[in-house]
Amino acid sequence: MEVVANITPSALREKIRSGEFSDNTSGLAPGFVQCNIVILPSQWAADFLRFCQANPRPCPLIACSSSPGDTGLAKLGNIDIRRDIPSYRVFRDGVFDVECGDIMDLWTEDLVTFALGCSFSFEEALMEAGLDVRNISEKVNVPMFRSNIPCESAGPFSGDMVVSMRPFLPADAIRAIQVCSRFPAVHGAPVHLGDPGAIGIADINAPDYGDPVNIRTGELPLFWACGVTPQVALENAAPPFAITHSPGCMLVTDMRNAELAIL
Amino acid sequence: MEVVANITPSALREKIRSGEFSDNTSGLAPGFVQCNIVILPSQWAADFLRFCQANPRPCPLIACSSSPGDTGLAKLGNIDIRRDIPSYRVFRDGVFDVECGDIMDLWTEDLVTFALGCSFSFEEALMEAGLDVRNISEKVNVPMFRSNIPCESAGPFSGDMVVSMRPFLPADAIRAIQVCSRFPAVHGAPVHLGDPGAIGIADINAPDYGDPVNIRTGELPLFWACGVTPQVALENAAPPFAITHSPGCMLVTDMRNAELAIL
Repeated sequence: MEVVANITPSALREKIRSGEFSDNTSGLAPGFVQCNIVILPSQWAADFLRFCQANPRPCPLIACSSSPGDTGLAKLGNIDIRRDIPSYRVFRDGVFDVECGDIMDLWTEDLVTFALGCSFSFEEALMEAGLDVRNISEKVNVPMFRSNIPCESAGPFSGDMVVSMRPFLPADAIRAIQVCSRFPAVHGAPVHLGDPGAIGIADINAPDYGDPVNIRTGELPLFWACGVTPQVALENAAPPFAITHSPGCMLVTDMRNAELAIL
Repeated sequence: MEVVANITPSALREKIRSGEFSDNTSGLAPGFVQCNIVILPSQWAADFLRFCQANPRPCPLIACSSSPGDTGLAKLGNIDIRRDIPSYRVFRDGVFDVECGDIMDLWTEDLVTFALGCSFSFEEALMEAGLDVRNISEKVNVPMFRSNIPCESAGPFSGDMVVSMRPFLPADAIRAIQVCSRFPAVHGAPVHLGDPGAIGIADINAPDYGDPVNIRTGELPLFWACGVTPQVALENAAPPFAITHSPGCMLVTDMRNAELAIL
């Protein structure tokens, strides 16, 4: 199950495809874009696409199927979406049903795949800028919170924005905003900083998802739009059938993070 | 003394040169760069130049004399530095001596002029972005504070950074950081945000220079490196003779703010 961190994306996908690797992809194939995945029946796809377009910060769409039933995402590499994710989650009527290592048996010609940008890309940019990304240095999942910032609804898809939090000293916070502004395709700049209560977060040490991290003296919490937002919208829309990646088990693509930099 | 706000820079300088206008230049000739001015004897010029280069955020050098005694700044327009500033301040041994409308009688072939970027340029960019610049909406001078952020010394020039403060709601603060990052030649992004005490400011309502502004519920103070910093360094260096502009009475140039945008 062990792989070297600097494995190429295609070599890693091969190990995933063969069932040899089914774990968290954080830190693997550095420099390459990893994606959140949502798979929906075609009749739900147009509304979900509109939801992404209306809410680009939490739902930065990087690629989607060219037509229903298409198992590839040519823009992102030689991908078989039915087998190239380490772990999938199946939802029925908006409720989590089961986790599985591939979706060969569940695939139909009616399914549409969406690949969304993920925070791993901007965390890499922050670290390259010499900044301490607390969830990484403390080796935990990033703390995530349901905020009271409403998303724009699209058909049945709606909900408040989920945000991830990383603390920084003020000068580093300014630098982090600059660094992340270069990457709108992977959530971009933070949406909030400072007082958690201002966006409806009651307790900064009790995240709704992920783990708490230490906020040191003088540090401010910075909040980014988070890829869990579309999962919440999915729960709210409750389509009869949907598939996502399992948390942290992302689609590892051949696209470079540097390709996403707008500057 | 009244001039129309959208007067051209050269027309405004003509009125200044003739003694017809000797007032604050804030809001005049919008779209064009206004500069802080420091004039020094040539033997002090090299150290001051090094001070600017070592501290580009408080001292963003836009132009300087091509040689001692040069009264023009060709890069910035058809300028006679002896008459084109509405009001000058003369310092002797680092101490303010007198204010005057021109420096024709004080000029010598030994003097070197430095033109530094000014916050008016980024304030314009903030307003164009739809943000409320509090000192402008409240029609007062921006509050400025002596921080405890040290400048890098160069010869006799040294001192802590003076910072200007503008309050914003968190999302606007993030936008303000993005907008100002485009303009490093006019102080660029803020150097601090949030807790004033973290940079040695005891009372946010008692600025060392300028006027206090209202900080509304939910707003954070953002702090920018300020062009008063070189004046403090000048006081510390105490050259036998120096001339600056009077606060708010800037050199209005033919250079467009848009020319300074790095993006």
